[in-house]
Amino acid sequence: MSDGSRGSTGLQVEALLAQVTDTPRIVVDRGIVARNIRRMADRAAAAGVVLRPHTKTHKMPEIAAMQLEAGAIGLQVAKLGEAEVMAAAGFRDIMVGYPIVGPEKLERLAALARQARMSVSLDSIEAADGISRAVARRGATIRILVEIDTGLRRIGVLPSDAIGLAERVSSLPGVEFGGFLTHEGHVYTAAADMAEFERLTREACRVVVEIAEQARRRGMAVPVVSVGASATARFDMTVPGVTEVRPGTYVFNDLTQMELGAAQEQDVAACVIATVVSRPTDDRAVIDAGTKTLSSDQRIVASSQRSFGRLFGQPDVWLVRASEEHGVVGLPPGSALRVGDRVAIIPNHICAAINLHDDVLVADGAAMVDRWRVAARGRLQ
Amino acid sequence: MSDGSRGSTGLQVEALLAQVTDTPRIVVDRGIVARNIRRMADRAAAAGVVLRPHTKTHKMPEIAAMQLEAGAIGLQVAKLGEAEVMAAAGFRDIMVGYPIVGPEKLERLAALARQARMSVSLDSIEAADGISRAVARRGATIRILVEIDTGLRRIGVLPSDAIGLAERVSSLPGVEFGGFLTHEGHVYTAAADMAEFERLTREACRVVVEIAEQARRRGMAVPVVSVGASATARFDMTVPGVTEVRPGTYVFNDLTQMELGAAQEQDVAACVIATVVSRPTDDRAVIDAGTKTLSSDQRIVASSQRSFGRLFGQPDVWLVRASEEHGVVGLPPGSALRVGDRVAIIPNHICAAINLHDDVLVADGAAMVDRWRVAARGRLQ
Repeated sequence: MSDGSRGSTGLQVEALLAQVTDTPRIVVDRGIVARNIRRMADRAAAAGVVLRPHTKTHKMPEIAAMQLEAGAIGLQVAKLGEAEVMAAAGFRDIMVGYPIVGPEKLERLAALARQARMSVSLDSIEAADGISRAVARRGATIRILVEIDTGLRRIGVLPSDAIGLAERVSSLPGVEFGGFLTHEGHVYTAAADMAEFERLTREACRVVVEIAEQARRRGMAVPVVSVGASATARFDMTVPGVTEVRPGTYVFNDLTQMELGAAQEQDVAACVIATVVSRPTDDRAVIDAGTKTLSSDQRIVASSQRSFGRLFGQPDVWLVRASEEHGVVGLPPGSALRVGDRVAIIPNHICAAINLHDDVLVADGAAMVDRWRVAARGRLQ
Repeated sequence: MSDGSRGSTGLQVEALLAQVTDTPRIVVDRGIVARNIRRMADRAAAAGVVLRPHTKTHKMPEIAAMQLEAGAIGLQVAKLGEAEVMAAAGFRDIMVGYPIVGPEKLERLAALARQARMSVSLDSIEAADGISRAVARRGATIRILVEIDTGLRRIGVLPSDAIGLAERVSSLPGVEFGGFLTHEGHVYTAAADMAEFERLTREACRVVVEIAEQARRRGMAVPVVSVGASATARFDMTVPGVTEVRPGTYVFNDLTQMELGAAQEQDVAACVIATVVSRPTDDRAVIDAGTKTLSSDQRIVASSQRSFGRLFGQPDVWLVRASEEHGVVGLPPGSALRVGDRVAIIPNHICAAINLHDDVLVADGAAMVDRWRVAARGRLQ
């Protein structure tokens, strides 16, 4: 694998287009993935924080193994089904960043706790109590982190309620209080103002650090203060008191990461290769990659144009519309694109795109070298 | 199966919630599916048009079989991979409503033509020529329909170019010119004005009928004038000269069909069952169904509120936000929803939701009776 040796070269799109046997297909360059993983690991090591990458982006044991090799302490997953795939692949430290609720899931969580050190993040005593009762009678232990809402208004207790919940969790049998956690995803709304983006990120992290310090002053052990997202990683891991970061998208990157200043095109490790199936007008090509290939995650780009992705190497050529199986490319005057030509699309959101594919082709520079299964795709429960 | 006997009863959500072993899961009521299929078949028969349902909605041979049994002449699919699944399941008249481009796909299309009567719709001589060359040397025949852009500005020749392309297609070896086709999806933008929606639908159909008549006056055989979508079916099939309609979503229905006046809640045959995993505030519940379960297809509902779906039986309770694995339900004051409770969500777009699930649970009224695999999911190529 050509990690260091490839320098900062990006996807070798021209060489790869013709090697894809059929489209649409996602191609992943494992050298660029390795470089992205190494860079984040180095950054975490320099900041003195632990790295627990979120596997929801790739859902592939192959890439999780690269992350562990580069120094990650363990994995975060979004779903219990994803944890089962990763545990079966041999990973031994897994955090499900999601409240585990309901008898079926609690049974499965308890079974997983016999294979791996399992952690769960949650925001209610009901969820914590369910876990406690499910594992206590089996002699297992689950580590619980209390999730704090620092502004995303999704899941998470209000900062003022965090210590109270942590104290109640600590008193439950079968569970071990692991610390506090947040996902500062609300800062993405400040994409147009990077100074504000950084300020909001640091502020969210400081809220959690402050709660951890208050809890320690009350005599609680708070081993972990966990924050993170790929786009905020360059800011959040240097906030004093943060102990763990959980970026996910950085392994591949996408248009959103580029817009948020976390990646450049040369850091994009995954593209969707598509074929032009229609050239109905001068200003429009239609490709065989629509929302069932890229997802319907939209972005607003220059001059309030909606976009579903853009052409690799062509900063002004956008997928301006998409339906299930059609992507409409807005073409500049004089475009020579013809029916049968292939193009490489950088998706808006690679996590959502990968989730639509059973497998991906793996390149290393100009050579197609492997195929990886998206092993945890479809594990919705 | 309780087709007629169930009258107009809707999904038995209360009875089904507790029977779902784990969430999120799609539940399909086969009695309501059968009723929806019967209603569309009766409508087509009354209008004297042929029904070629689009299987992209369900991707399941079980439902395709119900459609054929009710009188459909054959199937439409969106992808060659879907055609292969349906041909392997025994279906013998399949139209791929998509230009087939590239040597791999042409090879597979020619192989399919040995198993089934295959049709393809397209809008360029390049695509037609590729098909002709691939099949002619194998002694197979592919029927080609010329797609006309009646306003969607996606794929399709301009009306003024349709006959010219049809004539060139007719002269190619190995292909048989089948007629003209459109998908009048642009009329969905008139959702707020049903009179305009109907007017635009009829206008689009008349454009294609007029082209067919012109072609016949020139001496061409034009057996098929094919139009359609589920929401427009009640208008398009009665336009004189239309011979075939291709609705898809009507088997399940969804919020979009309801908004377009094509279905009521009692006609919704598929819901996503989810669990409340967090109740962080009085006005918010978080459920375990986000965009990786429902898709990120959004709608704007009352008072410019975005929505990703709404609760079955609760016309004012919307999924107001969604991220990959979290759905945020905006709750009315005093909601008693608790962590662990289950809810049923009507998706905005059921075709996109089904595509995210490997299988669905099958109910018949209050009983859970089967599980169907989404057999053509993941067949992107």
